[in-house]
Amino acid sequence: MPKLVLVRHGQSEWNEKNLFTGWVDVKLSAKGEQEAARAGELLKENNVAPDVLYTSKLTRAINTANIALAKADRLWIPVKRSWRLNERHYGDLQGKDKAVALEHYGPELFKTYRRSFDVPPPVIAADSKYSQKGDERYADVDPNVLPQTESLKLVIDRLLPYWEDVIAKDLLAGKTVMIAAHGNSLRALVKHIEGISDADIADLNIPTGIPLVFELDNNLKPTKPSYYLDPEAAAAGAAAVANQGKK
Amino acid sequence: MPKLVLVRHGQSEWNEKNLFTGWVDVKLSAKGEQEAARAGELLKENNVAPDVLYTSKLTRAINTANIALAKADRLWIPVKRSWRLNERHYGDLQGKDKAVALEHYGPELFKTYRRSFDVPPPVIAADSKYSQKGDERYADVDPNVLPQTESLKLVIDRLLPYWEDVIAKDLLAGKTVMIAAHGNSLRALVKHIEGISDADIADLNIPTGIPLVFELDNNLKPTKPSYYLDPEAAAAGAAAVANQGKK
Repeated sequence: MPKLVLVRHGQSEWNEKNLFTGWVDVKLSAKGEQEAARAGELLKENNVAPDVLYTSKLTRAINTANIALAKADRLWIPVKRSWRLNERHYGDLQGKDKAVALEHYGPELFKTYRRSFDVPPPVIAADSKYSQKGDERYADVDPNVLPQTESLKLVIDRLLPYWEDVIAKDLLAGKTVMIAAHGNSLRALVKHIEGISDADIADLNIPTGIPLVFELDNNLKPTKPSYYLDPEAAAAGAAAVANQGKK
Repeated sequence: MPKLVLVRHGQSEWNEKNLFTGWVDVKLSAKGEQEAARAGELLKENNVAPDVLYTSKLTRAINTANIALAKADRLWIPVKRSWRLNERHYGDLQGKDKAVALEHYGPELFKTYRRSFDVPPPVIAADSKYSQKGDERYADVDPNVLPQTESLKLVIDRLLPYWEDVIAKDLLAGKTVMIAAHGNSLRALVKHIEGISDADIADLNIPTGIPLVFELDNNLKPTKPSYYLDPEAAAAGAAAVANQGKK
């Protein structure tokens, strides 16, 4: 039966610095690399053996997968990457300190930009050093479709075609599919799979570096509740994500 | 114009132990990881920017590429893997100590098995713990085509279809193609590209971890001699490879 394994990348250099990241291609911190290794150990200990890997086009997700699969002795599986699995584009917030942004926008607008379903932040200026305009990794994508800011709703809109057309094929073939991606692209996917409402998705927090497993039927519907391979660490991690930006 | 970058994986745990490896999936040693990082630095320093990565199905080549591309800030490029880029299958020699094999077979037969063009070692027993029979990473390959021993000639025979049908397409599209593979699969490829004779190929030694660059025309013929990104280290490395097994 199809199995889906979601892994949110470990701590990045900018998570550590409390900056909005989005599409800026920052690296994993040393802690993030440790989290990735732990994710691989959890896969191995639980005999969860991915047959194919999907990643975003961002280094922190790719490196998380590489470190985890090395630990799990599965580096040899096929890999596919897509910008459609990227983190939410944070628009003008990219590169800004979260505490500074909280002060600047006030708690309400700050929460809206972080957690509302369909209100994107202001677009990023094309000449911002945190814009991805001209980034060669997106050279094969229609420039008109590349975002300059995104709400969670816009993430779902650009992610679902890839899920439906590409990832679904591997699942329908009975494979165990691993996706290494980001807080918001994974929230978008979980919302779709579990049918979470636009309102309730605001309260879903996915912790970093702990594989989240979905067992699916041949209609790609869950046959049982999804589960983390380390439930205790996942609960603690989700609480930490929920508290982000509150300092 | 098409550019081809070959990277032989760095030292593995079995290179270090002086064992014949072939298709046995051993890991990089700490030194091998350092060599891979150096390969990535050389790519970056020389502005050699791969657009697409090809690897064998073996962990040591894949990990070499992952470490190198992380250093070169190119982890995001597409990746394709094939068993056709695997190291030569060493048949019955797999898992055997090179010095012991030298003593057992004598210097002439030892050299024949290591370096003759078309004499493969004896086949590996299907029940050997160093056989790849039943290895799930080859589950999608016609079992009749999977080798149980190989000469360099047989490596060329199984590698060229992949070069012609798959890798050539990316080169003909003008891409910079990186291949992370093994001593003998890379020798097979260099023999083909440079038209080296069956006799002369015995003297070609490719050092580990130093990118070897081919600039090609639209017929995939070299426009100038191939070059290593660190020629001095390459010369020393090639001499070290030539002396392997002589202790």
